Amino acid sequence: MSEEIQHADADELQARLSEVQTLLARHHLVEDLVHKQEMPRHELVESLVHKQHLNELRHKLDKMHPADVAYILEALPLDERLMVWDLVKAERDGEILLEVSDAVRETLIANMDSDELVAAAESLDADELADLAPDLPHEVIQDVFQSLSVEEREQLRAAMSYPEDSVGSIMDFEMVTVREDVTLEVVLRYLRRFDELPDHTDQLFVLDRDERLKGVLPLNKLLINDPESEVADVMISDFVHLEPDDDAEEAAQAFERYDLVSAPVVDRDDRLVGRVTVNAVVDFIREESESELLAQAGLREEEDIFASVWNSVKNRWTWLAINLVTAFIASRVIGAFEGSIEKLVALAALMPIVAGIGGNSGNQTITMIVRAIALGQIQPESARRLLHKELGVALINGLVWGGLLGVVSWWLYHSFQLGLVMTGAMTLNLLLAATVGVVIPMTMQKFGRDPALGSSVLITAVTDSGGFFIFLGLATLFLL
Amino acid sequence: MSEEIQHADADELQARLSEVQTLLARHHLVEDLVHKQEMPRHELVESLVHKQHLNELRHKLDKMHPADVAYILEALPLDERLMVWDLVKAERDGEILLEVSDAVRETLIANMDSDELVAAAESLDADELADLAPDLPHEVIQDVFQSLSVEEREQLRAAMSYPEDSVGSIMDFEMVTVREDVTLEVVLRYLRRFDELPDHTDQLFVLDRDERLKGVLPLNKLLINDPESEVADVMISDFVHLEPDDDAEEAAQAFERYDLVSAPVVDRDDRLVGRVTVNAVVDFIREESESELLAQAGLREEEDIFASVWNSVKNRWTWLAINLVTAFIASRVIGAFEGSIEKLVALAALMPIVAGIGGNSGNQTITMIVRAIALGQIQPESARRLLHKELGVALINGLVWGGLLGVVSWWLYHSFQLGLVMTGAMTLNLLLAATVGVVIPMTMQKFGRDPALGSSVLITAVTDSGGFFIFLGLATLFLL
Repeated sequence: MSEEIQHADADELQARLSEVQTLLARHHLVEDLVHKQEMPRHELVESLVHKQHLNELRHKLDKMHPADVAYILEALPLDERLMVWDLVKAERDGEILLEVSDAVRETLIANMDSDELVAAAESLDADELADLAPDLPHEVIQDVFQSLSVEEREQLRAAMSYPEDSVGSIMDFEMVTVREDVTLEVVLRYLRRFDELPDHTDQLFVLDRDERLKGVLPLNKLLINDPESEVADVMISDFVHLEPDDDAEEAAQAFERYDLVSAPVVDRDDRLVGRVTVNAVVDFIREESESELLAQAGLREEEDIFASVWNSVKNRWTWLAINLVTAFIASRVIGAFEGSIEKLVALAALMPIVAGIGGNSGNQTITMIVRAIALGQIQPESARRLLHKELGVALINGLVWGGLLGVVSWWLYHSFQLGLVMTGAMTLNLLLAATVGVVIPMTMQKFGRDPALGSSVLITAVTDSGGFFIFLGLATLFLL
Repeated sequence: MSEEIQHADADELQARLSEVQTLLARHHLVEDLVHKQEMPRHELVESLVHKQHLNELRHKLDKMHPADVAYILEALPLDERLMVWDLVKAERDGEILLEVSDAVRETLIANMDSDELVAAAESLDADELADLAPDLPHEVIQDVFQSLSVEEREQLRAAMSYPEDSVGSIMDFEMVTVREDVTLEVVLRYLRRFDELPDHTDQLFVLDRDERLKGVLPLNKLLINDPESEVADVMISDFVHLEPDDDAEEAAQAFERYDLVSAPVVDRDDRLVGRVTVNAVVDFIREESESELLAQAGLREEEDIFASVWNSVKNRWTWLAINLVTAFIASRVIGAFEGSIEKLVALAALMPIVAGIGGNSGNQTITMIVRAIALGQIQPESARRLLHKELGVALINGLVWGGLLGVVSWWLYHSFQLGLVMTGAMTLNLLLAATVGVVIPMTMQKFGRDPALGSSVLITAVTDSGGFFIFLGLATLFLL
């Protein structure tokens, strides 16, 4: 990273955004004046004033880190975003496109022509290009591909071939390698011939004559050891092996457990094919946790906050539709007991409480189990033990909260029996929630599915319909 | 980290857990045999067999990384967990306690006596000790404090004084510092006197005579530049400044934006007080995202999956209680319309659909807004624009889904007017959800509160009670 580029903390970043907005506002003001007052268009004057503001802005943007430009682009509405995007130097387009969110990237790419896109893409490394490629038009990819060296083409092809969320999809190819039979002095001299080491080079990779990875040489060891020592004597031969097809989540856990900065990626024959760095892992962790949060709320993907109404509708409709279906099923369960409700209308008022507590409690159970499965803490043998525990928790909650609500219902509706039905239904629905909360994710895991997928919808569907059925069923049996 | 310690990928880790479980099972088997068949207790033989299994286990544990031992402890039920814990070498207790989850740490500490705890604590650095301190008995802290050097006491006091989630709470004190007027050659010789550099040393900190931070010297620059150059000519003077009172989240965002491995922490006078490393940031990001997920499901904290029923109940009751209150309010809203339901019992079956879609849609809106606020993408001026957009989305969803459900209700209950009320109520509840989904987090932010706090409960409470009120109210006005 060039030293001219300035780093900013959060406040400075906000200040920069305000500056950009002020400059844009001034620019708009001049345009408005010219337009509204029907000023004679002294084009020279006008364009000078414009240019002044825009030049100032361009100058500021040039000095910002690509991630900060990305931040500003994301925080601006579409028209202003595109105006700022035009002011960014063409040779920086590529690195900035990598930094913006998927949704914002789409809006930027949609407003670039093929030549601009090819130029932007050509400024990137193979692994970065692979990240960007799915968003680029096919002919742009073709053009870029032509311009690559044979080695880069091979890397790009490899990088694009790995499935999403695999180690291959987050690795890069910027490794510095050394031989094991040279002295540290030779390594030090070799490094001095570089203009720059790749970012996040905390260790060099030691290869034998067949390009097999024999060990890693941390820079720390290189620095503290006698320059006369041989690499083989200083290197570490027990290191974390990642393979391109491993889950990226596994790599992330290894980085967390062992506090890594970089790790080599090898193929089945121990040949070095790439490396994963901690910044890629941090991005991966953030994206995973965001998409989990978004998925829980039923958003398909991260949304550009200034997206059009139509794009937002598209992003959200799937989940709403699924929920409507489950709500409709629950509604039909109630419909089956309309006769009972007609006779005792209090049931209509009390039933959402029974369904609600089941949903909440079930979500607690399933969240805990899904998380423990993700961390590898649950063996199939533990299932019975966990189920027992969850049933115990449900029983206590049912007796305590169900008991309380039973008393309240008795007091409100002057019916001791209604109170008993309330307590019984709440306890049974909590037991149902606990059972389903353990069984759904364990079953998903058994069949090799992602236990988190749709877990919240499923359990709410069960506890809603189940809760209505249990409560109205008990009431019909014992009260009418 | 010693080279004897072995790294494991996810599969190896699972395999190690199985090994431990097998050894424990064999150990139990012997005990059972002795017990059940009432074998004469040839104590020597028995204890030899025991010892053999336990020794094998001890040996395996010694070779594992502390994080892997922590993983195994977390995956074992309490009795087996404590058996394994006893086999861990005392001098490793401290580092392992740092790695286990809070809930599991409690169970381990509860089973150690004061001397063991003091010994474990004394093996840690000041910043690590500060992390562990809240879980240790007061007298243990006192004892440890006595054993520290003056400088360490000062560091420990400082580390413990910073609020949770501040930069101070995630920083450490292991900085390597150099002067700016020496040559790189001198720096290289200085480093060779170290036995080991602190983990994550990717840059040295350059101080002037008053201990003020003048710049940073990345190891990369140290390695590629001519040893005759002076530090001042090679160092970078524009670097990320963190202060101990900054939000840790801000630091995490800086690490993400600028792909940092370490960053200096300075006080107001630019004096270096510590550094933040990427592993602390990764841990922080994971914990934040986990606690967000757990909070959404209404779990106060991470739960030991083998926690007792009682501890689980305590961890979960707050949220259940809050939800019961909001469900009770919604129930009273329905109660106010019991007369209408008695006349038209179809209302009871349809009303959960209206409430449900409002809750889902409101959660989508609020999740998106909360996230955008957290990323600093929303200015107060954008509020009106966002509200317009969300109202637009709600209107479309209301007309589409509300229209569909209106037709279904008409067909099910043969009442065109009931269909119209259904469509109208769904649309109005979606508009309510959109308004509240934008207004709640923006208001929280205005008053300096965390917009995420309880957002999901609040919006569901509003859309439930609001949905019932709107639907039953419209029905009472137009159908009866």
